[in-house]
Amino acid sequence: MFARARRWFLSGSCMVFALSGMPSYSQADEGMYLFNDVPRELLREKYDFEPSEEWLQHLQLSSVRFNSGGSGSFVSSNGLVLTNHHVASETLAKLSTEDRNLIEDGFLAKDFDEELKAPDLELNQLISIEDVTDRINEQITAGDDAEEAAKQRRAAIATIEKESLDQTGLRSDVVTLFGGAKYHLYRYKKYTDVRLVWAPETAAAFFGGDADNFEYPRYNLDATLMRVYEDGKPAKLKHFLEWNSEPAKEGDLVFVSGHPGRTQRIFTVEALEYLRDKRLPSVLDLLRRKEILLQQYGLEGKEAARRGRDELFGIQNARKAYTGMLAGLQDPQTFVAKRGRQDRLLAELKKSNENASLADAWAEVAAIQSEKAELLDRSVSLRSELFQIALRIVLLAEEDRKPNAERLPAYTESGRESLLAQLLSPAPIYDDLEMVKLADEVALLLENRGPEDTIVQEVLAGRSPKQVASDLVTKTKVKDVEFRQSLVDGGLDAVLASDDPMLRLARVIAPEYRRIDEISEQLSEREKQAYADITQATTMIEGTGGYPDATFTLRLAFGVISGYEERGERVDPTTNFAGAFTHSKEHEGQEDFDLPESWMNAKENIALDTQLNFVCTADIIGGNSGSPVVDRDGTLVGLIFDGNIQSLTSDYLYTDVQSRAVSVSGVAIPEALRSIYQAEGLADQLGN
Amino acid sequence: MFARARRWFLSGSCMVFALSGMPSYSQADEGMYLFNDVPRELLREKYDFEPSEEWLQHLQLSSVRFNSGGSGSFVSSNGLVLTNHHVASETLAKLSTEDRNLIEDGFLAKDFDEELKAPDLELNQLISIEDVTDRINEQITAGDDAEEAAKQRRAAIATIEKESLDQTGLRSDVVTLFGGAKYHLYRYKKYTDVRLVWAPETAAAFFGGDADNFEYPRYNLDATLMRVYEDGKPAKLKHFLEWNSEPAKEGDLVFVSGHPGRTQRIFTVEALEYLRDKRLPSVLDLLRRKEILLQQYGLEGKEAARRGRDELFGIQNARKAYTGMLAGLQDPQTFVAKRGRQDRLLAELKKSNENASLADAWAEVAAIQSEKAELLDRSVSLRSELFQIALRIVLLAEEDRKPNAERLPAYTESGRESLLAQLLSPAPIYDDLEMVKLADEVALLLENRGPEDTIVQEVLAGRSPKQVASDLVTKTKVKDVEFRQSLVDGGLDAVLASDDPMLRLARVIAPEYRRIDEISEQLSEREKQAYADITQATTMIEGTGGYPDATFTLRLAFGVISGYEERGERVDPTTNFAGAFTHSKEHEGQEDFDLPESWMNAKENIALDTQLNFVCTADIIGGNSGSPVVDRDGTLVGLIFDGNIQSLTSDYLYTDVQSRAVSVSGVAIPEALRSIYQAEGLADQLGN
Repeated sequence: MFARARRWFLSGSCMVFALSGMPSYSQADEGMYLFNDVPRELLREKYDFEPSEEWLQHLQLSSVRFNSGGSGSFVSSNGLVLTNHHVASETLAKLSTEDRNLIEDGFLAKDFDEELKAPDLELNQLISIEDVTDRINEQITAGDDAEEAAKQRRAAIATIEKESLDQTGLRSDVVTLFGGAKYHLYRYKKYTDVRLVWAPETAAAFFGGDADNFEYPRYNLDATLMRVYEDGKPAKLKHFLEWNSEPAKEGDLVFVSGHPGRTQRIFTVEALEYLRDKRLPSVLDLLRRKEILLQQYGLEGKEAARRGRDELFGIQNARKAYTGMLAGLQDPQTFVAKRGRQDRLLAELKKSNENASLADAWAEVAAIQSEKAELLDRSVSLRSELFQIALRIVLLAEEDRKPNAERLPAYTESGRESLLAQLLSPAPIYDDLEMVKLADEVALLLENRGPEDTIVQEVLAGRSPKQVASDLVTKTKVKDVEFRQSLVDGGLDAVLASDDPMLRLARVIAPEYRRIDEISEQLSEREKQAYADITQATTMIEGTGGYPDATFTLRLAFGVISGYEERGERVDPTTNFAGAFTHSKEHEGQEDFDLPESWMNAKENIALDTQLNFVCTADIIGGNSGSPVVDRDGTLVGLIFDGNIQSLTSDYLYTDVQSRAVSVSGVAIPEALRSIYQAEGLADQLGN
Repeated sequence: MFARARRWFLSGSCMVFALSGMPSYSQADEGMYLFNDVPRELLREKYDFEPSEEWLQHLQLSSVRFNSGGSGSFVSSNGLVLTNHHVASETLAKLSTEDRNLIEDGFLAKDFDEELKAPDLELNQLISIEDVTDRINEQITAGDDAEEAAKQRRAAIATIEKESLDQTGLRSDVVTLFGGAKYHLYRYKKYTDVRLVWAPETAAAFFGGDADNFEYPRYNLDATLMRVYEDGKPAKLKHFLEWNSEPAKEGDLVFVSGHPGRTQRIFTVEALEYLRDKRLPSVLDLLRRKEILLQQYGLEGKEAARRGRDELFGIQNARKAYTGMLAGLQDPQTFVAKRGRQDRLLAELKKSNENASLADAWAEVAAIQSEKAELLDRSVSLRSELFQIALRIVLLAEEDRKPNAERLPAYTESGRESLLAQLLSPAPIYDDLEMVKLADEVALLLENRGPEDTIVQEVLAGRSPKQVASDLVTKTKVKDVEFRQSLVDGGLDAVLASDDPMLRLARVIAPEYRRIDEISEQLSEREKQAYADITQATTMIEGTGGYPDATFTLRLAFGVISGYEERGERVDPTTNFAGAFTHSKEHEGQEDFDLPESWMNAKENIALDTQLNFVCTADIIGGNSGSPVVDRDGTLVGLIFDGNIQSLTSDYLYTDVQSRAVSVSGVAIPEALRSIYQAEGLADQLGN
């Protein structure tokens, strides 16, 4: 399954920077286009299709972003939102208890009253896009160094966002595109009252488990329905997708409207080498460590397994995705093409007198990679819910003392409401799980920074990592939402006065966290500048056109329903319900291939030839999970939930030879609702 | 479970050196004593027990070493050998097929004819020990550097071993003890026709799985019976242990006779810091990587799961053991005691004029740790069965051209028969599993040594790691035992003439393997010298006595059956069959806690109050698995199979506060044979 984009590795000070920019003639069905810059010519020439403004606007306003890291769409006039089970699973986990396991058992609300409010979900509907490149660049004084430029840019962005928020009341985010060549202001309507309506069992949604994940053919009902509310009532929506009652057919042109989280296609050879040789091996060591840790925790019993499950799934998913990504980079052939193009560009630049200096950008990117390597494994941002809350409370209090334009991006006025919703979320936090995670994080801190490190010594204070974790978790009051509220209300004075051990730890760690964050920020700024030059050079030599690298903002991708060849055999682009039962039988005795009881009981009722999953060539990536797939008429024919194993390199390299996006078929969902889940009423609402 | 000692991390060029030496007054029941140097005074004073020569010799000759990495004992006049299921499991795996899963389902031979011959098992019975320290030291010319000294020592050892083999026909190994202060010649009778008689199901032997592993209370029937044959008939044994029909009682004095694999108690503070900061974190990253790899492989289906299972278990076991070991080292309190003792020793040395220079040994050990760190992750010895066979065939052919005294230790005359038995073993090798392992090893080689490394480039030759593995495994003939035999027979000419791709790879890698091996060897030699000085200094200051660090040779440990306190509660030293059923019920729904069908069916027949497991304070470690536990009379009362979680630090630190050795109770085995496994006849043979 594609992941909640921001969950694991788009946060933290050592993140792979979410860079952007990819000017080049798009080949095949490559491309994640901006809604304000769709490739009209290409679509006309290749597919004889011309999207109208209304077509585009309707699709845009029917699309939603899950701020937890995924995509979705409005599918009824009364507020229904369609997304993936694995996008909803974080909410399912938060709504579950020892006695009510929504992830495992699924859920169906019989009426509005039974719909369950998510504790901290925020959905964003993109209302408008405005180019603010000039406004921002005006603020940068020529000749400033990277540090100063970053400060000025950050201030300009904070001011624009705040101004827009004040004027429109809409969430306002400035997005960096094409490696800093463009800045666009995105305005979103926020939905924060989101309720769970229906979710199938994990056995149906994640049928085949880790084994089948990122594979194809697939037979997964990776779908969930939620509903947005306004003023305590189901929201009345003008824009929502109509539901196509016909299955997709091979050769059909389809569109995907969603929020790809991050691609790295602009990356230079040296940046990819850094990924291959340093960053990804390190990330994978960490993921495997956490995977084993949570597996071990889950062995403690059924309830422990339930508590750790959602995070474990996320980690396993990331591990499998990164393993595929690294394997692609470890194939020397991957670099042959990349290096060829880079060498040609540099040779062209050399010939040009006036632009030869642009070639320095490649050297600058290479230099930055070495500096990034020094930050690897230096992070002090312990991965524990309680610590993260404490750290953010400390940072918030400190940042609040500064003028808005000087604050860290995450703490400016425009994002405040969303931040507070996270900080004050009543979602459950489990002491035993926190202890296990924190003990491991403290041990990791010790391993990474060494026993002589001042922070390590302050954190340990003569105790073992396990003892530290136990002391912190049993004694902190950060679990208590009211305590958090009192700190937020009390500001820096309250934060400094508190002797809560977790808060004390956050205060000890905050300065180093800021120091590393600042270095990262500077590297990122320099990298942006370099990639802006690379973008300019590339555009000059190869021409304009194309799309920026993914930024977890709304994009339009397109492609056709299309099978492919694998090991000499043809893989059909569609599967059906009958295939699910066959697949289950073929893997008898493997738990992950057991279909849920509801399916086994309903087998006679299901129209088994109903399409269940299909693949298409559209260019997607993690964060696209839950994206609607629509046809030429803009009606819904599918729901993106995965890419196949060959698509795992599409972070840095798109091909359509075997790489495919995997969807739940639109027709599968009402069929399942009616014949398996006894949810006729809900099925009737879809597309109406 | 304690591991087969040599399986995972006692081999390879980056091994933690199996050093020795630990002179110090033994406290509590600490100590793994040499059979020719048992602590008579201590036993007399503390336990009023004086072992006679006959008592000792009978126990020695009733004990066996499993060369695959474990211990066992003779328990009948007609050749029965008792060991752990997890020691036998490698053989069980090799004897299994898709249709006969001996690990999962267990095994019982109804008569001699049904007993299954292990494909490559070698058991060693220790016949005699001879001190050869002087003979070896005579060969070392004073003033030689480490490299030259190592060469001379190696030559002296090879000569002594060969001479002994020629004279006695017995396997003859020179063992380095007390950090090179002593060299003893161990002579073994070898048993190479070993047959499987009875094994319970994994569900009984490893009841509670990874969750309960290294925990207590336990309820495991981790036992297996084999039989040694001579001339095709059950061996007639003079020395075997009588079976005690009474259960062990709290306070009873017991002895453990077995083969502890490795301890590191002589280690200096700096050597332990190296373990904590470099070596163990690196080992654990590797173990977790392999654990996930084999888990993923197992998801491919039931047969894949079966093929990978034994290795996966071994890895999980090692991961849990090393995690506990590292956690102990990460507790700053661990170092307080170690550093205190070291500082006192160094202060004493400073006061002495003539011996002050001995203090240099501590600095030398510290320096060696930095050099070891440089070797970390440089290994080229790919962990694949086929590659290992190919590499050893190449090395054997090359070494055979040298005089015996100059060969690498593993290739001298004295070990040749055992080596060939391994190289020509008909044990199954699975192509699909080999490909998965080899692809990961090539990827790891690339990650560790970088893409510019000559060896990496030669191995890849423009291909991805996966493609390399696929090319090698599908095209090599090394799977074929006859092909191996032809290479062994043909010697270096045949090896050089072969165009087999795996052999070619081994030839590419062999020189670097030798280079790293040589550096390790030199470091080891210098470290031996340093620890010999440390031993001398310590003996001078703290007095003599004690035992050398473990060396996977026969040792005698002792202790008492004794419960302990944990989280304020008393843990009883014994469990019984009834407890197993209760424990299973408490963990209903967790697969690893399901007792096998045979137990459930037999529940009414079992005398449920029969003792099943017990703990004692004897000082044991991995390699002791399968060791007999005997009482004052030398009769068998138990079978070591594990240490509790608190004992995981005993690699470098023994305590008897909570640390315990865990055994299958002697009385449990005949009870299970009679009432669960319908093996009356076999039960009757035990101890007779």
